[in-house]
Amino acid sequence: MNSHLDPKLDLSFERIVDVPKKLVWKAWTQPEHLKPWFCPLPWKTIDCEIDLRPGGLFRTVMQSPEGEKFPGDGCYLEVIKNERLTWTNALLPGFRPAPTSNSVGLIDFLFTATIQLETHGTGTRYTVTVRHGDEAGFKQHVAMGFEQGWDKALDQLVALAKKI
Amino acid sequence: MNSHLDPKLDLSFERIVDVPKKLVWKAWTQPEHLKPWFCPLPWKTIDCEIDLRPGGLFRTVMQSPEGEKFPGDGCYLEVIKNERLTWTNALLPGFRPAPTSNSVGLIDFLFTATIQLETHGTGTRYTVTVRHGDEAGFKQHVAMGFEQGWDKALDQLVALAKKI
Repeated sequence: MNSHLDPKLDLSFERIVDVPKKLVWKAWTQPEHLKPWFCPLPWKTIDCEIDLRPGGLFRTVMQSPEGEKFPGDGCYLEVIKNERLTWTNALLPGFRPAPTSNSVGLIDFLFTATIQLETHGTGTRYTVTVRHGDEAGFKQHVAMGFEQGWDKALDQLVALAKKI
Repeated sequence: MNSHLDPKLDLSFERIVDVPKKLVWKAWTQPEHLKPWFCPLPWKTIDCEIDLRPGGLFRTVMQSPEGEKFPGDGCYLEVIKNERLTWTNALLPGFRPAPTSNSVGLIDFLFTATIQLETHGTGTRYTVTVRHGDEAGFKQHVAMGFEQGWDKALDQLVALAKKI
């Protein structure tokens, strides 16, 4: 699904990391492994629920350094073990459309994210693609610091994965 | 995915029809077979594109008796041959969120629809479930005549399927 990027709507991020893809997969799909790395510090992920199947819930609750909580609910679309994980906040579990008036505060634009993992030597080529529904959402995500945020979170993921 | 219906948000419709499920499946998944039955007459379906895989396009263009055209684009979510077909208009192909400002005129609420097929004697138990994102969409769909519309379209589908 990583073909057909639209430069006005899509963001992507790619890095080679020195952990095998099965550990990256674990870090993305098991709440106890996801919570330590998912938010760039000093933000924290204080809760996480994962129902790992198309139509299943992906829920995180992030907490700001000031203690404010930001829940985010999404729905998995593609779950291909050790290869590709896709979810969206445009749908809730059971593929139900998210209420259109639902602004969750921290991320109030719609997106679909895909994490693609490919073996690269003894490590992994890690590619993130985030598709937005309109240019306003795309620009908001850029302004939030998409690239730096995913880069820093990936550093944290790699450090965590080495301890799994 | 047919469990957990919410009576304030979900509509469902069930009928036993006297055609085997593989013909019902064909009528739903091949444009030349879908176009003759998909719209309750005197409305017509004048165009249809189907890319039958999760993330693929489901596009129809309906035409009113006055000749006005109403395109509707959606994205398949579940494609289980002869068993279950799920799509949503909350996403576009490649699972991209639909633009939030996109009102298509005829159906301007978000929904996810599932067609479930089960063998029943020599025929099929045909179950439609439509999930909405909010009560406004649910009410709009009821006011459009959800039950009568799907019932009449199913009569047309059965007549078509017997000729495949």
